[in-house]
Amino acid sequence: MPAKPILNVALVGYAFMGRAHSNAYQQVGRFFADCPFEVRKKVMVARTAGKLAAAAKTWGWDEHSTDFDAVIARDDIDVVDITTPPNGHYALAKKALLAGKHVLCEKPLAMSVAEAKELAELARKKKRTCGVWHAYRFCPAASTAARICREGRLGTIQHVRGLYLQDWLNDPTVGAGWRTQKRICGSGSHGDLNAHLIDMTRFITGLEFESVNGLARTFVTERPTGDGAGKAKVDVDDAFLFLAQLQGGAVGSFEATRFAPGHKNTNYIEVNGSKGSLRWDFYRMNELQFFSFDDPPHLQGWHGILCSDSAAHPYVGSWWPGGHHIGYEHCFTNMLYDWLHALAAGKPFRPDFADGVAVQEVVEAALDSAKSKQWVKLKRSQKFSGPAPVRTPATAERNAGL
Amino acid sequence: MPAKPILNVALVGYAFMGRAHSNAYQQVGRFFADCPFEVRKKVMVARTAGKLAAAAKTWGWDEHSTDFDAVIARDDIDVVDITTPPNGHYALAKKALLAGKHVLCEKPLAMSVAEAKELAELARKKKRTCGVWHAYRFCPAASTAARICREGRLGTIQHVRGLYLQDWLNDPTVGAGWRTQKRICGSGSHGDLNAHLIDMTRFITGLEFESVNGLARTFVTERPTGDGAGKAKVDVDDAFLFLAQLQGGAVGSFEATRFAPGHKNTNYIEVNGSKGSLRWDFYRMNELQFFSFDDPPHLQGWHGILCSDSAAHPYVGSWWPGGHHIGYEHCFTNMLYDWLHALAAGKPFRPDFADGVAVQEVVEAALDSAKSKQWVKLKRSQKFSGPAPVRTPATAERNAGL
Amino acid sequence: MPAKPILNVALVGYAFMGRAHSNAYQQVGRFFADCPFEVRKKVMVARTAGKLAAAAKTWGWDEHSTDFDAVIARDDIDVVDITTPPNGHYALAKKALLAGKHVLCEKPLAMSVAEAKELAELARKKKRTCGVWHAYRFCPAASTAARICREGRLGTIQHVRGLYLQDWLNDPTVGAGWRTQKRICGSGSHGDLNAHLIDMTRFITGLEFESVNGLARTFVTERPTGDGAGKAKVDVDDAFLFLAQLQGGAVGSFEATRFAPGHKNTNYIEVNGSKGSLRWDFYRMNELQFFSFDDPPHLQGWHGILCSDSAAHPYVGSWWPGGHHIGYEHCFTNMLYDWLHALAAGKPFRPDFADGVAVQEVVEAALDSAKSKQWVKLKRSQKFSGPAPVRTPATAERNAGL
Amino acid sequence: MPAKPILNVALVGYAFMGRAHSNAYQQVGRFFADCPFEVRKKVMVARTAGKLAAAAKTWGWDEHSTDFDAVIARDDIDVVDITTPPNGHYALAKKALLAGKHVLCEKPLAMSVAEAKELAELARKKKRTCGVWHAYRFCPAASTAARICREGRLGTIQHVRGLYLQDWLNDPTVGAGWRTQKRICGSGSHGDLNAHLIDMTRFITGLEFESVNGLARTFVTERPTGDGAGKAKVDVDDAFLFLAQLQGGAVGSFEATRFAPGHKNTNYIEVNGSKGSLRWDFYRMNELQFFSFDDPPHLQGWHGILCSDSAAHPYVGSWWPGGHHIGYEHCFTNMLYDWLHALAAGKPFRPDFADGVAVQEVVEAALDSAKSKQWVKLKRSQKFSGPAPVRTPATAERNAGL
Repeated sequence: MPAKPILNVALVGYAFMGRAHSNAYQQVGRFFADCPFEVRKKVMVARTAGKLAAAAKTWGWDEHSTDFDAVIARDDIDVVDITTPPNGHYALAKKALLAGKHVLCEKPLAMSVAEAKELAELARKKKRTCGVWHAYRFCPAASTAARICREGRLGTIQHVRGLYLQDWLNDPTVGAGWRTQKRICGSGSHGDLNAHLIDMTRFITGLEFESVNGLARTFVTERPTGDGAGKAKVDVDDAFLFLAQLQGGAVGSFEATRFAPGHKNTNYIEVNGSKGSLRWDFYRMNELQFFSFDDPPHLQGWHGILCSDSAAHPYVGSWWPGGHHIGYEHCFTNMLYDWLHALAAGKPFRPDFADGVAVQEVVEAALDSAKSKQWVKLKRSQKFSGPAPVRTPATAERNAGL
Repeated sequence: MPAKPILNVALVGYAFMGRAHSNAYQQVGRFFADCPFEVRKKVMVARTAGKLAAAAKTWGWDEHSTDFDAVIARDDIDVVDITTPPNGHYALAKKALLAGKHVLCEKPLAMSVAEAKELAELARKKKRTCGVWHAYRFCPAASTAARICREGRLGTIQHVRGLYLQDWLNDPTVGAGWRTQKRICGSGSHGDLNAHLIDMTRFITGLEFESVNGLARTFVTERPTGDGAGKAKVDVDDAFLFLAQLQGGAVGSFEATRFAPGHKNTNYIEVNGSKGSLRWDFYRMNELQFFSFDDPPHLQGWHGILCSDSAAHPYVGSWWPGGHHIGYEHCFTNMLYDWLHALAAGKPFRPDFADGVAVQEVVEAALDSAKSKQWVKLKRSQKFSGPAPVRTPATAERNAGL
Repeated sequence: MPAKPILNVALVGYAFMGRAHSNAYQQVGRFFADCPFEVRKKVMVARTAGKLAAAAKTWGWDEHSTDFDAVIARDDIDVVDITTPPNGHYALAKKALLAGKHVLCEKPLAMSVAEAKELAELARKKKRTCGVWHAYRFCPAASTAARICREGRLGTIQHVRGLYLQDWLNDPTVGAGWRTQKRICGSGSHGDLNAHLIDMTRFITGLEFESVNGLARTFVTERPTGDGAGKAKVDVDDAFLFLAQLQGGAVGSFEATRFAPGHKNTNYIEVNGSKGSLRWDFYRMNELQFFSFDDPPHLQGWHGILCSDSAAHPYVGSWWPGGHHIGYEHCFTNMLYDWLHALAAGKPFRPDFADGVAVQEVVEAALDSAKSKQWVKLKRSQKFSGPAPVRTPATAERNAGL
Repeated sequence: MPAKPILNVALVGYAFMGRAHSNAYQQVGRFFADCPFEVRKKVMVARTAGKLAAAAKTWGWDEHSTDFDAVIARDDIDVVDITTPPNGHYALAKKALLAGKHVLCEKPLAMSVAEAKELAELARKKKRTCGVWHAYRFCPAASTAARICREGRLGTIQHVRGLYLQDWLNDPTVGAGWRTQKRICGSGSHGDLNAHLIDMTRFITGLEFESVNGLARTFVTERPTGDGAGKAKVDVDDAFLFLAQLQGGAVGSFEATRFAPGHKNTNYIEVNGSKGSLRWDFYRMNELQFFSFDDPPHLQGWHGILCSDSAAHPYVGSWWPGGHHIGYEHCFTNMLYDWLHALAAGKPFRPDFADGVAVQEVVEAALDSAKSKQWVKLKRSQKFSGPAPVRTPATAERNAGL
C-alpha cells in the first residue's frame, strides 16, 4: 500500500461546528479505508486566543493561530474550513479563495445572495473544489431518499413538507447570543433551520423553488445578556413559516421554529409524488420511510427502511455491521469523505458554492415575502447544474475485520 | 326505570354520511345507558326514489320519502338531519328551522358565509338546538386534547400545525364526482378537509383565526365522467395549503390534499404552547401525544396517552373495557350522545351553527387569499361564545356488565 | 331483491360478550349488503332475571328468558350463542347440539380437552355449523397476515413470538371475580389471553404445537370480595409464560399477564420465516407490519400496511372508505358474516369446535408443564383439517353509496 | 490546567471490537473535557502479523506486536484490553493480571463459570480495576432506565422481557466463522446476544437470576467454509430462548436469534413493575419508553423520553447539543470514560469481573437447562455487591463552546 498524498487543513473556529469538523478530519481516515488522502489537522484558527490553544490540543491540531492572513499565506495549507458565525463567512472564504485554497464553509454560505454569488463565481474562476456543510445530505437515509427519487419511484413530485422544530428558546430566561442577533446571523430560525430544509428539498427532489411566501414571528423580543446584567433585543425570527411553489407544479410547506416543546431537533421532510412518497425524520436518522403504489395492493404500506446495511446504503459499510446505528456527527465525516474523493478525482463536489447561492436565494426571497406580505418570485440569475449526484453503496468501502 | 321520552328523527341522505348517521341513531341508545331519549329512526328522505327504500329498510328507518316538504310539515318529526352534498344544506336547513325542527347538518354548514350566518341567526331566533357534524371533536383523544389545553398545560399557544392528507384522487383515472365540482361542493380538498382542521384548531385551542394566506393547486384538471364516455373539468382544488395568524400571536400552517400517496386519511394536528405540546393523528385515533415541561427533566418525553380508559377519557366507558379500541363511526355516536344531552337539558350544544359560520369564514377567507395572492383578514361580524366545553369522563356513563 | 331467509338466534349472556355479540347480530345486516340471512335477535337468555329484561330491551332482543331448556326446545330457534363464563360452555353447548341447533360459543370452548372433544365430536355427528369466537382472526390485519403467510412470502416459519399483556389486576385493591376463580374460568391469564395467541399462531402460520413448557405466577394471592367484607383467594395465574416447539422446527415464546403497566390490552404476535416476517399489534389493529427479503435491498424495511383499503383487505369494504378505521367490536361482526356465509353454503367454518379442541390441548399441556416443571408433548388424538382458509377482499362486499 | 497523568494501553485484537475500542481511546479525551487521564494508544497486539501493522497505523497505535508476553512484561503498559474471540479471553486476562495490569475484557469474560471466577478472584487479589465491555449499559437511555428503576418508580419488579434479534445468518449461504464454532465462542446466539440481555436485566433491575429453562435451535446445521471448498458443521445455537425466575418473584422471558428477518440488531428490553414500566430498543437507542401510574390518569401513557438532553441524561452533554443523536460506538467511549474515572479515584467499576461471572453463570445454567430439558437453579457461590451505581448527568461534563 503506497503512502497516500497528504492534505493539510486549516480550520477556523473551535465551537460546536469546530468540534464537529475536527472530529470528521480525525475519523475519515480511520473508518474509510479508501480515503484518498492522509488528512493533516495542521492549524486551528480563531480571532482571539482565549480557549484556542486548549481546543487545538484536545482535537489534535498541530498548531494554532489568531492570524488568519498569515495562515492562508502559507504554502503548506491546502484547505481552509470556515465555521465562524455567518457574518464571518464571506470575508474569510474570499481571502482563502484568492490565496488559492480549497474552501469548505459552514452554512449559510454568506449573509446575502450578492456575497454568496461572488464567492461562487470566485470558486469557479479559481477552479477550487469548494463545499458548503449541508451535512444532512450525507446521512445514509437522506442519500437513499435522493436515490429513490432519482430512480423515478415517486413519479412526478407534487408535495414537499418540511419541518425543522427545536425548543431551546422556549424558555424566556435563555440568554441572547449570536443566534439572536441579526447583525451576526442574518436571520433566526429561518436561516439556521429552514436553510437545511431548502437544501434537502433540492437534494432529494432535484427541483428548484419558483416562488415563496413567508410569515415570521418573534415570540420573545428581549433576552438576558450574557452577563445577566441587562436585556438584549431579539431582532431575528423565533419561528418562520413559508409556502412555496416548485418547478413542475409541486407545492411546498416549510416551517422552522425554536419554540416547539418536545422537539429538541426535529428535522423532517416528506415528499409526495404521483407514484409514491418518502419521509425522513432526523430523530430516527437511520430510518427512511417509503411508500409505493408499485407494491402489490395488500402489501402496500410505508416501508421503514433501516439505512444501516452496507449492501444497500452508502457510507454505512465503513462504520459498523448492519443495525449498529451511526449518529449526528457521522454525517460530517461522510460528507468529508465524498469531498475528498471529488478533490482527488478533480470532479465537482455537491453541495458546492452554487448550491450555497441557491439556498441563499430562497432564504432571502422568503424573508422579503414576510416583510412585503407578498409572494416573491425567485430571480435566479445563475444556471444550476441539475440535481446532485447520489452515492450508492460501494462494496469497496467496507473495511475488513468485522 | 321510567320510559324515556321519544325523539323522532328525519334523515336526509343515505350515502356515506347517511350510513354513519343512521348507525349513530342506532347505537346511541344501545351503548349509552343514560341516553336521555328513546331515539326513533322515523323517516329517511332523498330526492329520488332509487336506492332509498332498500337503504331505509337496511338501516331500520320506519318510513322513507322523497317529499322533504311533506316530512317537515309533520308534527311527529322532532329533528331533521341533513347529509346531502354541501349545495343542499342551506335550503333544507332553512326550511327545517322555519318548520320549527331541531337541525343537525353535515359540514360545511353552507356554501357561503352569508348563507351560514343566516342559518345561525335563524337557529338563534327559533331557539332550536342545532349542530354541525364536526364529529372528530368527539373522538376521545380529541376531547382529551381540548381538556389538556383548557387545563393550561400547554401555556400560551404559539404554533398549530394541521395536515389532512388523502390519496384517493392520485390516480387520474378516478372519475369525476360531486366532490370535484365547485357548483356542488364549493371547493375541493379545502372545504372538505381543511374545514376539519379549522374546526379542530378552534376546538382544542379555543382560539379564532385572524388572517390567512393560501395556495391552491389542481394537479389533474380533467377526469372521466361517470359514464366513462367523456371528460369532466375539475374546477376545485386537489390540494390547498394556508398559513394563518391566530389570536394571541400564534401562527399556524394547514394543508389539505387528495394527492399524498401513503395517506389514506391522515387527519393530523399538533399544537405547541409555551409549556407543552399536543399532537393527534386520526390513523391512531385512540392515542394522543402530549409533551410537558412540567415533567421531571429525566422523564420528559411525549406521553403516548391511550385514550380508551373509561376512568380517564370521555365516552369510552360506554363502549368497551380499557384498551379495546373504538373506530371511525363511534365519533358520530359520541357526538349524538352529547347533542341529545344538550337537547334534553336545554343547554347549548357545540359545535353549533355559529361554529359552522366561524369555520366557513376561515374557509372563505383562505379561498379569497389564494385568488388574490394576498393575506386576508377575517371579518368576524359575530361574537362567538368562546371555546367549546369539553366533556370529562363521567363514571355514570359506564354500562354495567363488563 | 328477494327476501332473505330468516335466521333466529338465542343468545346466552348479556355482559361484555353478550353486548359484543348482540351488536354483531345487529350490524351484520346493516353493513354487509350480501349477508345471506335476515338475522333475528329472537331471545336473550340468562340464569337469573336480574338485569336481563333491560339488557334484552336495550339490545333489541324480541324476548328474554331464564329457561334455557325451554328455549332450545323451540322449533323457531336456529342458532344458540353462548357467552357465559367458561364453566357454563360445555353443558349448554351439548344441550344445544343435542337439540339440533347450530352453536356459536365463546372461547375457551370448554374447561378440559375431554369436554371440548366431546363437543367437537357431537358437532360433527349432528352436522351442525359451529364456531368458537376467536374473533381476532377476523380483524382485517390478521386475515391479511394469514394470507401473506399462505402465499409463502415468509418462507419456512422459524419463530413465533406472542404477547398478550394487560394491567387491570396490577392494583391489589381490584376485587376478586369469576376471572380469578379456577372453578369458573379454569385458569387465569393463560386460558383468557394465551388462548388467543395460540389460536392466532395456528391461524396465521397453519402450524400445530408439538410441545410446551410453561411458568405460572400469581402476584396477588388474595383480593377483596365483591361486598368488600373480606378477602377471596386467587387460585389462578396472574401471568403465564411458555416456550413452544411447533411443527417444522419452529420455536415459539408466549406470554400472558394482567400485570404489565402501560398495556391495557396489548395483543401482539410476530412471525419470522426464512424469507420474511410479520407482526401485528392489536393496539394498532388496522395496521400490519411485514418485512420481506424479496424487496430490493435499498427498499427493504417493515411495510406498515394500513389494512383499511377495501381493494386490498377483506371486510373493510363493507364498513367505510379507506383510512377510516374500524374498532374492536367489528371483528365480531366480520366473523359472524363469515359464519353466516358458511352456514348458508353448507361449507365448513373455521375456527370450528375442532379448533377449539386444538387450542384447549395447548392450554392444558402448558398448565401441566407449569405444574410438572417438564416439557409436555401434545397428544393430539384428532386429525385437524389443516390451516383455516383466509378471506381475500371481495369487491361484491362493498356497499354502494360511499 | 495541569497536565493529566498518562495512561498507556495495550489492545489485543483489531477486528470489529478492536476498532470500537480503538475509537473509544481516541474519542474519550476529545469529547470528555474532564477525562482524568491522557490516554496513550501504546501498542496493538495480535497473534499474527497479517493486517496488524496497517490496522495499528490507521487507528493511531504507537506500536504493534505479535508477542503478547513481551508486551505485558513492559513496565510502561498500564492497561491491557482484550478483544479476541471468547476462547482467548481467559489465558490473556490471567497473564495480564498476573503481570499487574488493569484489564478490560470483551464479553463473555470466559468460556466457563470456573474460568470467569478464577479471573474475578485474581482481579480482587491483585487489586486491579477491571471491567467487562457490556457497553450497552452506557447508552444514556439504558443508564436513565436504571436510574428510574433505582428511584423506585417501577415499584416491585414483576416482569422482564428481553429480545436480541438479528438476521444475518438467515441466508444459508452465509459462511461459517468463529461465531458458529463452539470451540471458539462457547455458544451461538446465546452467549453472544442473550449475554447482553442478562447483563442489562441485572443492570436495570438490580435483580439476580434464580432459575432458568431454555430451548436451543440450530436452523442451518452446515455452512460453507471460508474457502468455499466445503461445508463446516455449525455446532452452536442459531436461536436460544429461555424463561427465568428472578429475585423477588419476578419472571422473565428472553430470546436471542440470528434468524429474524427485519431485525438487523434489535436489542430490546422491557421491565414491568407494580407502579410502572420501562422499555428500550437499541434501534432507537436515544429514546427510552417509560410508563407510570403516578401520572394523572388522563395524562398516563408511555413517555418517549429523548435521552439526548445533557441536563437530564448522563454522557450526552459531552457530545452534542440536545437532540443531536449519538450512535453505537459512543457507548464504548462512555464506558471508557466511567472506567477511567473509577481507576483515577480508586473506586470500584461496574460491570467488573464479578459481573462477568454472574452473566456467565446464567448463560451456562441456561445451556445446561436446554440440554437437560429441566429447570436449572443458579448456584451462586459468590456474593455480589448489589446493583451497579448509575451515573446521573453532571453539568461539569459539558464541554464549552456549543
